[in-house]
Amino acid sequence: MMLTLGEEMSRIGRHYGNRTAVVEGSQSLSWRDFSSRISVAAGMLQELGVNPGQRVAIYARNSALFDELKWGAFHAGVVAVPINWRLAPPEIAHILQDSTCEAIFVENDFIETFNSTELLPWRNKLINLTGSQNNGLDSYQQLFHAAQDVDVVEASPDDDALILYTGGTTGRSKGVRLSHSNIISCASAFTLATRGQPDDTYLHLAPMFHSADLLATGWMLIGATHTYLPMFSPGGFLNAISEQQVTMTIAVPTMLMMTLTDPAMESADTRSLRMMGFGASPMDPAWIRRTAEGFPHTLLFNCYGLTETSPDLTVFDPEEFRQAVQDDSPLLASVGRPNCLVDLKVIDLDGNTLPSGETGVLLARGPNITKGYLNLPEETAAALQNGWLRTGDIARIDEDGYVYLVDREKDLIITGGENVYSSEVETALYQHPDIHECAVIGIPDERLGQLVTAVIVAKPETALEAEAVIDHCRGLIGGYKVPRRVEFAEAMPKNELGKILKNRLRETYSS
Amino acid sequence: MMLTLGEEMSRIGRHYGNRTAVVEGSQSLSWRDFSSRISVAAGMLQELGVNPGQRVAIYARNSALFDELKWGAFHAGVVAVPINWRLAPPEIAHILQDSTCEAIFVENDFIETFNSTELLPWRNKLINLTGSQNNGLDSYQQLFHAAQDVDVVEASPDDDALILYTGGTTGRSKGVRLSHSNIISCASAFTLATRGQPDDTYLHLAPMFHSADLLATGWMLIGATHTYLPMFSPGGFLNAISEQQVTMTIAVPTMLMMTLTDPAMESADTRSLRMMGFGASPMDPAWIRRTAEGFPHTLLFNCYGLTETSPDLTVFDPEEFRQAVQDDSPLLASVGRPNCLVDLKVIDLDGNTLPSGETGVLLARGPNITKGYLNLPEETAAALQNGWLRTGDIARIDEDGYVYLVDREKDLIITGGENVYSSEVETALYQHPDIHECAVIGIPDERLGQLVTAVIVAKPETALEAEAVIDHCRGLIGGYKVPRRVEFAEAMPKNELGKILKNRLRETYSS
Repeated sequence: MMLTLGEEMSRIGRHYGNRTAVVEGSQSLSWRDFSSRISVAAGMLQELGVNPGQRVAIYARNSALFDELKWGAFHAGVVAVPINWRLAPPEIAHILQDSTCEAIFVENDFIETFNSTELLPWRNKLINLTGSQNNGLDSYQQLFHAAQDVDVVEASPDDDALILYTGGTTGRSKGVRLSHSNIISCASAFTLATRGQPDDTYLHLAPMFHSADLLATGWMLIGATHTYLPMFSPGGFLNAISEQQVTMTIAVPTMLMMTLTDPAMESADTRSLRMMGFGASPMDPAWIRRTAEGFPHTLLFNCYGLTETSPDLTVFDPEEFRQAVQDDSPLLASVGRPNCLVDLKVIDLDGNTLPSGETGVLLARGPNITKGYLNLPEETAAALQNGWLRTGDIARIDEDGYVYLVDREKDLIITGGENVYSSEVETALYQHPDIHECAVIGIPDERLGQLVTAVIVAKPETALEAEAVIDHCRGLIGGYKVPRRVEFAEAMPKNELGKILKNRLRETYSS
Repeated sequence: MMLTLGEEMSRIGRHYGNRTAVVEGSQSLSWRDFSSRISVAAGMLQELGVNPGQRVAIYARNSALFDELKWGAFHAGVVAVPINWRLAPPEIAHILQDSTCEAIFVENDFIETFNSTELLPWRNKLINLTGSQNNGLDSYQQLFHAAQDVDVVEASPDDDALILYTGGTTGRSKGVRLSHSNIISCASAFTLATRGQPDDTYLHLAPMFHSADLLATGWMLIGATHTYLPMFSPGGFLNAISEQQVTMTIAVPTMLMMTLTDPAMESADTRSLRMMGFGASPMDPAWIRRTAEGFPHTLLFNCYGLTETSPDLTVFDPEEFRQAVQDDSPLLASVGRPNCLVDLKVIDLDGNTLPSGETGVLLARGPNITKGYLNLPEETAAALQNGWLRTGDIARIDEDGYVYLVDREKDLIITGGENVYSSEVETALYQHPDIHECAVIGIPDERLGQLVTAVIVAKPETALEAEAVIDHCRGLIGGYKVPRRVEFAEAMPKNELGKILKNRLRETYSS
């Protein structure tokens, strides 16, 4: 039977004992010491009265302490609920209520968030993760020192290990249940596809409340070294690479674009960085080329997945990616191939499986797929049918297994009975020299069902008008795809990963 | 949920369709064509009336056809039973009876084995795998051409996929049940540890009836290319490497020793061979060095496992192995570290867990561990306790997680109340210049319980005597470990992997 994450960590502590587990600044811990701290953290949770299967929240920036607590929960059979610290108090309150957390570990700098009225009911469950005892709050440090190490609590690999909240931008966010075996299966397939090595140093660059951080799990399983950037900044990222001789990390395109245009880039030493993946949103080939030039010692690769898939589904093989960049290949528009334990297929809106090359709704199955959403049986049943997860993406898979994301299913515009993929219209728009950023959405319309609507951020000192935009599109795409309405905006609403929030645009322009 | 092997192959055929799956001589098949043949092979099994969960035997040398049939069985939810073609008719009869095979696919050259009296009852189930219809036997080719492709049969990943018979050297062999998830879990962890790549060409060198061939599974999952050596010979092995530009294979030490001393080695071109593992029995450091010199372009590594573990438990990281060879490190006596999904521990004879560095009985747990032996509930209960498999090996694990095999548990000699590890005595014996090969066994003795007995093959043209052997040992090991009895033999009984059969020696010298 598959081990649990707690059993895995106990194994790692014994089998990689003398190797460096985590390093922060000049401080480091061996796997023996780190795994031993983890078993004390588990003991601390037991002392607090948190039972196996119950939940605790973590509200903090990236650090080894975050991992210590998270893995301490795994060790104790307790479910960890990392929370996005960019959420507003009512959103946090929803998560705490939905997940019924027994304790909430909060970084010192963030404690004041919990003074807001919506969060007062949870005040008595707060523990200061990084500071000392204060304002009547217990401190993690103190509780830890009073605790004893305990044995790994027996659990099934199919038990929940983590709940990650997703989709908070529209209505209430959903808690995605990820089991020990979900996380371990994804980690082993991803680390295999990206050629992880035990002598890697992995930088936790993406926020640890986000599913992208689960990609680091494989580098735990093979006993590699981990280092942490508390919060992203271009200079901090580049410093971390040279200071800790980072060999591997996962970024999102926005981070790379910010880094490449930062003055710190000029003097940066990124020679140690053997491998860097990016995902979460597509990156323009020009930016891919620029990244390859900016990180000349680094094998780059693209990847794709969802919180519901623990999180990875596809990887663009790093060697093939290098070749594609060299050849300026159209393959660069894809997110690579499905990982070795993952199956993907494309269906039409009636549920029929489509042949290679045809565009439709992307489904996924495999050991990394969530068993569902917490407390949401209807949403779970809608997302998971016959073992297949509806990814919510419109995609096509070519004859060689390369996956091309075409649109989000919810961004698909149906106008006058025709399917319009917003990405196709956006590609046309981006060919206009005065357009800095754009997003195409469907706005409810009595006659057409939905109206193709372009929201545009123009480049500074240009004088773009709606008529010119429409004329521009007429020459490039079919008439029914051409925007009927054009709106200009100062900036796009985006999430912390740099994704444009189309739901918010739809709200704004539907009213 | 984890996919079954049938579902995995369907995925591979769709996602790696245009890549080369198998190549034999000048013939090759793409993954699309190979997986499509596999679905016809599954249809053929259904036409034969073989139902999901039922079993079919395969009795053949290595070939792509072997894999086609084996994966055809997986596709149809049928359990494959590969049989060692070096077994005697009564041993084969036991396997066929125990596994109640519905059909027996036999290579043309081996059909006559089934003329022996013991095998006559199975004659009506034979199908000629490689030849044409003959002697009233159906031919695979004909049945295949009459069959249609079928969909993958639904099965649970915990269902049996293969039964591999093991331990046939003493009494009746036991059928080890390996599930889809056992095989897939082992394959993904092993391929990760050995850095398998999609552009590899994997040579099936070890016999495909042996669990070592399951190590190739990971190179199926990542869509690499496979080629086959029907039967081992040094010249055939070296030719296959250069002809097919093989990049990866797994050998056993005897094969390497035979190859390195073969005249064909002088003109061999092994530059394509990126990686080669060896396992199944330990290799002397002098031979490891010689292998490294003979294959200067190849990363070597050691690995260890059992049929019961699908089959791998440990891998010596290839880069660390290269360093150890360069340093002539004592680490070379180890079999590396446990793979990332596998936990190992060492216990004493009373069941207490021992700390790092202490020698005892090696236990293993993880997703690659068999659920037990077919039709043998007592043996299964004895081997599997609380999720841990008793490996049957005596070992120690050092502080860095390196595993050192000390002895087989059944070869442990208890003499006058003391534990004697035969390997320790053998190491002392091998320091005598006149000893070519030796094996130390315990022979029942009224007074001491067991008598430490050395069986020796002396080098040609030497005149070694028992007294000299005993004197030699006295200077090297404790008195109770020194052989009390010394026997000389012309040659050692060995199995097809070159392991000395100590059971047979015990039978011979106990009488």
